[in-house]
Amino acid sequence: MRFATVTADEQQLYGAVIDGGFVALSPDFPQWPTLREVIAADALPTLTKAATGRAVTHPEGSFSWDIPIPAPEKIICVGVNFPDRNAEYKDGQDAPPNMSLFIRFPRSFTGHGAPLIRPPETPQLDYEGEIAVIIGKGGRRIPQDQALSHIAALTLCNEGTLRDWVRHAKFNVTQGKNWDRSGAMGPWIVPFERPDQITDVQLTTRVNGEVRQDDRTGRMLFPVARQIAYISTFTTLVPGDIIVTGTPTGAGARFDPPRYLVPGDVIEVEAQGIGTLRNTVEDET
Amino acid sequence: MRFATVTADEQQLYGAVIDGGFVALSPDFPQWPTLREVIAADALPTLTKAATGRAVTHPEGSFSWDIPIPAPEKIICVGVNFPDRNAEYKDGQDAPPNMSLFIRFPRSFTGHGAPLIRPPETPQLDYEGEIAVIIGKGGRRIPQDQALSHIAALTLCNEGTLRDWVRHAKFNVTQGKNWDRSGAMGPWIVPFERPDQITDVQLTTRVNGEVRQDDRTGRMLFPVARQIAYISTFTTLVPGDIIVTGTPTGAGARFDPPRYLVPGDVIEVEAQGIGTLRNTVEDET
Repeated sequence: MRFATVTADEQQLYGAVIDGGFVALSPDFPQWPTLREVIAADALPTLTKAATGRAVTHPEGSFSWDIPIPAPEKIICVGVNFPDRNAEYKDGQDAPPNMSLFIRFPRSFTGHGAPLIRPPETPQLDYEGEIAVIIGKGGRRIPQDQALSHIAALTLCNEGTLRDWVRHAKFNVTQGKNWDRSGAMGPWIVPFERPDQITDVQLTTRVNGEVRQDDRTGRMLFPVARQIAYISTFTTLVPGDIIVTGTPTGAGARFDPPRYLVPGDVIEVEAQGIGTLRNTVEDET
Repeated sequence: MRFATVTADEQQLYGAVIDGGFVALSPDFPQWPTLREVIAADALPTLTKAATGRAVTHPEGSFSWDIPIPAPEKIICVGVNFPDRNAEYKDGQDAPPNMSLFIRFPRSFTGHGAPLIRPPETPQLDYEGEIAVIIGKGGRRIPQDQALSHIAALTLCNEGTLRDWVRHAKFNVTQGKNWDRSGAMGPWIVPFERPDQITDVQLTTRVNGEVRQDDRTGRMLFPVARQIAYISTFTTLVPGDIIVTGTPTGAGARFDPPRYLVPGDVIEVEAQGIGTLRNTVEDET
């Protein structure tokens, strides 16, 4: 089962994605305004039951995709999490002892099918394909061996980045990672039921059909269970929080010369068992 | 006039702070659940009018202080924003061309009068006294010469930091800046009506009565108007967003040996025209 947040007739809805389109479920559950509250109520199974046997309410093409959790409390991203990416920095350092973390605001993402926005200030829009985990059961100092049981669902992320603005200042990547609608999330969330949905799955990013990133989550420097344990050491995770788990080598900035995104490009982020997140690029008008 | 968010009898309220205590106003304005919605409605003058002539509803001691905007969309902090602080890094670099930015979650702050929490993982809890501006009128690419007109109010921030966790990873200060209740904000917000409320005011931090930080906002490397212009280049600012504008030299980490906070310490952050934010320190239990 797959659940999404969409907009149809200027109304935001959540529901199930099935062959042929979307089944609106949110009108039946006013006690849960968004998928965040569904997850907080541990009610994805309730949605699954409600969707069973239902017909499409909104056929494909009659709605637009939003980011699945419109307003999570936190979106925390893990940087430099594949071995070749650490080597790319050419600073002679071994794998770092702890993971780099940065934060993105929800408005830095757009939904599946919408264009990533290239701003007039810089042409260095770049892609980063990633898997995002959505926290179900919150907690603080979650032990690593129990961490996967705190995941409610998985989704995909194009962690779009304005490359020169990542190093605009002396410290921190904040401004390069937070341009409005520079990244994407979706198309949907897939309930997390078994560890093998995340422990070693293939993650691929294509630009105009050409494979640019292709690796497996089993090669992460900091696996997802360790991410949840580490992050929850300092901050309380709550239902609906999103951890964007890191991108493989092969972003456009790593080519010589760099291959940044231009209007008309089509970027696809695909992971086994989750699906494909597809976006185009447009110049901001 | 000063407005605060408090908790009394397990209920969160907003209202005015006057001699002797607090005047609850939120029960009269159910259309605005928090001060964020008041600010979005440009209704601080409405609160001022509603508070005029009213008696204290909650005398001092009968309520606890919360952070003034409990759930802003964004809290963006400016790093290394006073000349001596850049020199402290001893890396031979002149003032950087752009400001360093990082993000904090609301749960990393506690209210006036509550203890900052020192976690068992590290003894390096440090203070950073700052002024925070609260955005009133939102916008994108706000011109610097109009930026101050986008401020609704001012408050104080102790941007408490777990020093060793700032450099825990290869990049980004995220984890050192986001320990639950490691910082504080408040006690109240002061409506912003004139540029001279921010352009050159004295900002002082005391620990147990000893002055540790003392400087003027007129010496900022990146003045507040420039902060608003720069940040709104990449992200849309919305009402209630908070910019924490930078701390003077003199944090505990800069002493030799460092002087970190310990349980029982009293930290006061004071700025002309705003007030004094006072917190103690407790070990996490």
